[in-house]
Amino acid sequence: MPDFHAPPRFPRGFRCASRNVGLKPEAKDLTLFASDVDAAAAAVFTRNHFPGAPIVLGRETIRGGRLRAIIANSKVSNVATGARGLDNARRMAAAAAAELGTSPDRILVSSTGVIGVQLPVERIERGLRGMAGALQDDPLLGAEGIMTTDTHPKALSAGVGEATITWVAKGSGMIEPNMATMLAYIFTDAALAPATLDRMLRIAVGRSFNRLSVDTDTSTSDTCAILANGLAGAVDETLFLEVLVAGCVRMAEILGRDGEGAEHLLRVRVRGARDEREAAIVAKSVLNSPLVKTMVHGADPNVGRLLMAVGKCFDCEIRPDSTDAWINGFPVVRGGERLEFDDAVVRKALAAEVVDLEVALGVGVGDATVYGCDLTKGYVDENASYYSS
Amino acid sequence: MPDFHAPPRFPRGFRCASRNVGLKPEAKDLTLFASDVDAAAAAVFTRNHFPGAPIVLGRETIRGGRLRAIIANSKVSNVATGARGLDNARRMAAAAAAELGTSPDRILVSSTGVIGVQLPVERIERGLRGMAGALQDDPLLGAEGIMTTDTHPKALSAGVGEATITWVAKGSGMIEPNMATMLAYIFTDAALAPATLDRMLRIAVGRSFNRLSVDTDTSTSDTCAILANGLAGAVDETLFLEVLVAGCVRMAEILGRDGEGAEHLLRVRVRGARDEREAAIVAKSVLNSPLVKTMVHGADPNVGRLLMAVGKCFDCEIRPDSTDAWINGFPVVRGGERLEFDDAVVRKALAAEVVDLEVALGVGVGDATVYGCDLTKGYVDENASYYSS
Repeated sequence: MPDFHAPPRFPRGFRCASRNVGLKPEAKDLTLFASDVDAAAAAVFTRNHFPGAPIVLGRETIRGGRLRAIIANSKVSNVATGARGLDNARRMAAAAAAELGTSPDRILVSSTGVIGVQLPVERIERGLRGMAGALQDDPLLGAEGIMTTDTHPKALSAGVGEATITWVAKGSGMIEPNMATMLAYIFTDAALAPATLDRMLRIAVGRSFNRLSVDTDTSTSDTCAILANGLAGAVDETLFLEVLVAGCVRMAEILGRDGEGAEHLLRVRVRGARDEREAAIVAKSVLNSPLVKTMVHGADPNVGRLLMAVGKCFDCEIRPDSTDAWINGFPVVRGGERLEFDDAVVRKALAAEVVDLEVALGVGVGDATVYGCDLTKGYVDENASYYSS
Repeated sequence: MPDFHAPPRFPRGFRCASRNVGLKPEAKDLTLFASDVDAAAAAVFTRNHFPGAPIVLGRETIRGGRLRAIIANSKVSNVATGARGLDNARRMAAAAAAELGTSPDRILVSSTGVIGVQLPVERIERGLRGMAGALQDDPLLGAEGIMTTDTHPKALSAGVGEATITWVAKGSGMIEPNMATMLAYIFTDAALAPATLDRMLRIAVGRSFNRLSVDTDTSTSDTCAILANGLAGAVDETLFLEVLVAGCVRMAEILGRDGEGAEHLLRVRVRGARDEREAAIVAKSVLNSPLVKTMVHGADPNVGRLLMAVGKCFDCEIRPDSTDAWINGFPVVRGGERLEFDDAVVRKALAAEVVDLEVALGVGVGDATVYGCDLTKGYVDENASYYSS
């Protein structure tokens, strides 16, 4: 893990502003992230068949490989809103471009929140005015404006030689990203070409946000973008990738821990699988099992559920006789059989804030770790009235 | 739907007995189902890679195509228990065979309950004594002995010409069967060959129990068996299959409605898919989405979640422009866009005990209906302390 700055800060030339523009009653609901100069950029988006209007527009925008700013609102996701929704996304880009004195094709637009409601775009256009003059150095301010059910704003930063990388994200619910997480923005002052950024971003996302699941539900708004404005000059690319991956993994952990209703960060490592792909499939099966998640929530040492969740990966190579499992390092299964153990010890391991489940399949060398959380009554509460509240 | 008998009854020559033998504190925990004569039989079992000892034994037993009885206990599933567990399953079969004066290869054994705990087989052996003399005509008595978190015993019966079909099942949690549901036994006095029974059972299970999911978790104990003792003679096979399928579907609905913590039966029909396989995949995605399930639980008209859940079937053919959806017949999505509607009307539709979600994809003629339930705090409560309580 790199040394993350405390508090997090921006790379040279990046700033942000956030405010309430009337989408939410009082909380901040609009954020502008801007670079002083055009930045090389890459992005990945949700694979959901019903992408939001900002995703449709963003795929078009990112082809240019250059961005100046990101404008993002919370409360309304502008998904399932048809031609009017796409027009509203374009209006958001145009308004941000006008405010910053650049062109709309340099603006990435994001919206997050309820699906199927038209965006009150006039409020955003009005609210954007003056934000260019209010830009500040604190990435947490930007993180605030994109929160939905997140309980705290999320930002990290770390150094790479002379350069800095900063991550700003939001997560919480409808989280099993397939090309990226809900919204995650990465800013750096390193000088890197768009194609290099794109390659590195896909590697990093593959090992972090694509291994995150709060509730198996893949959002229609997932976006992960990286902007590199070059103000710090060239960097060691190997080192840069290493820090980029580490920061994305750490942010995935933060998003998992703050999953809707979550009380634990749950990490599941599967090793000894036929290959990395199967390791990730089995690990996700354990991570997403409601019965494993509730077991962790209740610190109930019902460890047979681990085998159940491994065993339902019908198409993976599983050998019961060579399957072992641990909970926070404590052995609970050997050779497909539950070990005799002191319930109180396993109960204590499960009660830790971070619960590491490890499964060794004894089949090959495939290894993967995935990130998520427990399932709680808080999740049910939040989602039984999300639209209405 | 056939006319189901009220109360349910057994076909000629089938009876059952159930009692407490000390696995649970007081409730019944052992059931014996027996035919007066050997019956042709077929069965399907879980595809989980960690099948319980009774499944391993049952696969061997069913090869003979003939059964005289089923002995089933609740509270302990005899899964992940190694060689000793298999030995205990054989001891259960031997004890039931001795009690009935038949051979162990005519006895199907089932165990359901917690995973990874050795079966107190002596209690079962002792408890079995005298059960042959206590056999009765009421299938609900047998259903009582196999309950775990079920809130009521489950049995149905219906006529087919001179013959009767009777279904007895338990469900509740760890329910996304892949070859069968947790435990479902079907008894008939029709005369049918084992190969015919096997073919019909697979068709019926494919349209019913394999389309049921309470929580996406596939049990290590799933068993569905059919016994035909022939005492009513030959039947019209087409009619028999029709009633068999209808009863299995009805039982799947009953299991869905009584899913752990459930307050609603949720039925999801997807039509207009590329083929039946894709219709079932999309329908299961909607049925299993925690966000759809909590929306139903809270009667919250957050209908965009339907599109999200359809859209995350990455490998299915989905055309946003031709996707429509209804909630209990009320249109909520047309052409991939959320319709304007009166929230109160949709809220009322979602508050019904049975909630039918229908999605038309406009791609082909594939059609499938799946069965499940809402996600509640009751589910979290039950499963955060299942082992300990």
